[in-house]
Amino acid sequence: MLAWLGAIQLGSAPVASTQTPAVRQVSLIVTGGTVITVDPARRVLTSGALAIDGTDIVAIDTPEAIARAYRSPQTIDATGAIVMPGLINTHTHAPMVMYRGLGSDLALMDWLQKYIFPAEAKTVTPAFVRTGTRLAVLEMIQSGTTAYADMYYFEEEIAAVTREAGLRGVLGQTILKFPVPDAKTPQDGLARTEAFIKQFKGDPLVVPAVAPHSLYTLEADTLQACAALARKHGVPILIHLAETRDEVGIAREQHRMSPTMYLDSLKLLGPDVLAAHGVHVSSEDIDVIKQRGVAISHNPESNMKLASGVAPVVKYLAANVTIGIGTDGAASNDDLDMFEAMRQTAFLQKLSTNDPKATPAPVVLEMATRLGARALGLEKITGSLEVGKRADLLIVGTDASRQIPLYDPVAQIVYVTRGDDVKTTIVNGNVLMRDRKVLTLDEAKVKAEARAASAQVRAAVGLP
Amino acid sequence: MLAWLGAIQLGSAPVASTQTPAVRQVSLIVTGGTVITVDPARRVLTSGALAIDGTDIVAIDTPEAIARAYRSPQTIDATGAIVMPGLINTHTHAPMVMYRGLGSDLALMDWLQKYIFPAEAKTVTPAFVRTGTRLAVLEMIQSGTTAYADMYYFEEEIAAVTREAGLRGVLGQTILKFPVPDAKTPQDGLARTEAFIKQFKGDPLVVPAVAPHSLYTLEADTLQACAALARKHGVPILIHLAETRDEVGIAREQHRMSPTMYLDSLKLLGPDVLAAHGVHVSSEDIDVIKQRGVAISHNPESNMKLASGVAPVVKYLAANVTIGIGTDGAASNDDLDMFEAMRQTAFLQKLSTNDPKATPAPVVLEMATRLGARALGLEKITGSLEVGKRADLLIVGTDASRQIPLYDPVAQIVYVTRGDDVKTTIVNGNVLMRDRKVLTLDEAKVKAEARAASAQVRAAVGLP
Repeated sequence: MLAWLGAIQLGSAPVASTQTPAVRQVSLIVTGGTVITVDPARRVLTSGALAIDGTDIVAIDTPEAIARAYRSPQTIDATGAIVMPGLINTHTHAPMVMYRGLGSDLALMDWLQKYIFPAEAKTVTPAFVRTGTRLAVLEMIQSGTTAYADMYYFEEEIAAVTREAGLRGVLGQTILKFPVPDAKTPQDGLARTEAFIKQFKGDPLVVPAVAPHSLYTLEADTLQACAALARKHGVPILIHLAETRDEVGIAREQHRMSPTMYLDSLKLLGPDVLAAHGVHVSSEDIDVIKQRGVAISHNPESNMKLASGVAPVVKYLAANVTIGIGTDGAASNDDLDMFEAMRQTAFLQKLSTNDPKATPAPVVLEMATRLGARALGLEKITGSLEVGKRADLLIVGTDASRQIPLYDPVAQIVYVTRGDDVKTTIVNGNVLMRDRKVLTLDEAKVKAEARAASAQVRAAVGLP
Repeated sequence: MLAWLGAIQLGSAPVASTQTPAVRQVSLIVTGGTVITVDPARRVLTSGALAIDGTDIVAIDTPEAIARAYRSPQTIDATGAIVMPGLINTHTHAPMVMYRGLGSDLALMDWLQKYIFPAEAKTVTPAFVRTGTRLAVLEMIQSGTTAYADMYYFEEEIAAVTREAGLRGVLGQTILKFPVPDAKTPQDGLARTEAFIKQFKGDPLVVPAVAPHSLYTLEADTLQACAALARKHGVPILIHLAETRDEVGIAREQHRMSPTMYLDSLKLLGPDVLAAHGVHVSSEDIDVIKQRGVAISHNPESNMKLASGVAPVVKYLAANVTIGIGTDGAASNDDLDMFEAMRQTAFLQKLSTNDPKATPAPVVLEMATRLGARALGLEKITGSLEVGKRADLLIVGTDASRQIPLYDPVAQIVYVTRGDDVKTTIVNGNVLMRDRKVLTLDEAKVKAEARAASAQVRAAVGLP
């Protein structure tokens, strides 16, 4: 079990609902609909119901059994819909929604140098990060993400907004060797990170993390200092790994090793590391990733749009590496819809392995939920619908014309469903969105503030 | 100019709106919003308006200029939205929406033999085809498709529903060498096709076509008879071409030629041919495709999900081959949303060519609109917003959180927009959907009938 889980109180023990004579009062009942649990047995209840008390799932059974054993002041009828675990986005840069669509169709370095770096240098402030994060978490709640991993600047602002919106986050303060908006030096970045960890350690929704950006933007001593800081506090490490051919070239030229072997030589790799991308890896690299217990975040849309390459997802799965799915920042992707990322994961592996049977729908759904939670070190509390876990779940409507007919609910979720189909989003037992109405954010205000702040971005990059 | 266009009366001549002193009465004005014309100059009007009279666009100008020169009993305010040409889906099997999600994640032959063939044998009747097509055209209207190419059985039913819904279609009666639901022999199929052509020739919305299924499902004499029939009546030919490695193997083994060279040896290829997929082609094949004026329908989602391969879109574009985008039937894809197909086209070419600059957003949008119209032989009347063309257009909302900010409207359409963002769909000057309300179909009834008919499919393939 990973260290930072210690801070989070685990849920109450399973309740044998059918043997409880008295009716138990709970805070929320979700009843009716097809329940896709994504538990280890991949149970799907054709007609199911959940009793939720406080933050936790206390029972999963038929609607009749739940009605006999539980009563609640709040019941949500999910008849005709699909009830499923919330999606886990294992790699984002949330405030970068503010740069969505800037300089599409450019090579990576042109894109960064003409658009992203100038925009970040001139716009990233705590207020801008709050505005961007509010827009990002709004989009996440509306498209069914209940937990996410993030790397950016002023991560304490991201954490505050995440908590305010009611989402779950593993949030990493980013460290680079260049001056960045919130730190002039990597030493400043490390100091900010430690303050950030102290501020949020033990939070019920936010897990603070250390986020060394990558091997090509940090010197060895800072990478080692990041690892030491994370281990001192028992928090996760988020890092980019083996994303592009260029990164492999740099590692080979400067260190005569693959990116994976180089980070391993610095003792950075361990079960507390979530590495984003993992595109360019050899069989030996995968062995090391497996041996060290490193988790991988697969970002197929970003990897396609930026022409980074195809991560060997089938090989990671075969090696039993923990692998989740991410969208990457919306500046490169260009959205935060995990349903799109799921479909793309399946499509891309089938194509790249010449095997239409590769990464079938149940496996992809598991990657986007339970395996994603494992990648975040949160599998004990989220990622599936199981008694004792936190109530992090979605009600997905099946009334859109694209949802008809519905023969196979799991295939429908992976191949047909969009974020727009999510009706209700629940995190930690709190209803964040009900029937498309977001309850924890003022949607109109969030959008208006983001539109207003986009004028700063236009000015920064010279758009009219 | 292709022969079947002769039957369709072209639009009125351009009106020099700023020089017209009198105010002209027109049937519809769409005003405000960003107008992406996709005309040959790729004009984008930051604030534009269109005057539509009857079926045709009669003026495109600023809202002020249109207000001075035109008045109409019907005005749609598109302020804040994006106005763009309707999308052209160049390859579908519309009624196969009824098999959506059946047997996902199987190899092609298993999928066909366990699910699709048994389902088709037991369910395909004229009534079933009508029910399925209604669901398909509902989904198309809701996701912004205004014209589509189709190949299926009982195509006259598909044509009747398409006309009733107000969509534009190039609809091909499918011919195979096996007994199929509407024809015991290919000769029966050819006779049905000729009757179908006579029934719909000259229709303002439906262009009848001959649809020999493929080289591996037809003998040479039938392929030649199909070509002769199409040329006798001056109608298009729709065919699958070079979709899979298996097809290439069959062509090489049986004919000692590539699929393209084999069809060319039968004199089937010409400017009246729209070939779906075109995945496995050599440079010589592309030369022949170009020389014969064959158009290609690119179906990236189907090609990925079925692991067929990557069509060389960049090479087709470089050779100036007409290439549009299609979804393929929803049984393999699993939806009819052309916005998804656009994004996938861009993503897949960037990845497969290792070049993030490949197939930039303006090129992909052109493929999904004007080039798609050219592939259907309809470029003179649709595929872009130009005076004299038919009013086939969309109003796309930009109020979803994923649409904020909006720096580059064309990139936003290709990389961010979903069918769900389409608010209003207009075809041939008729408003088919306004503010998400479909006006030409009874949405609830279409969905209920499709759900009811899906019971037949369940029974046919042994689902509970």
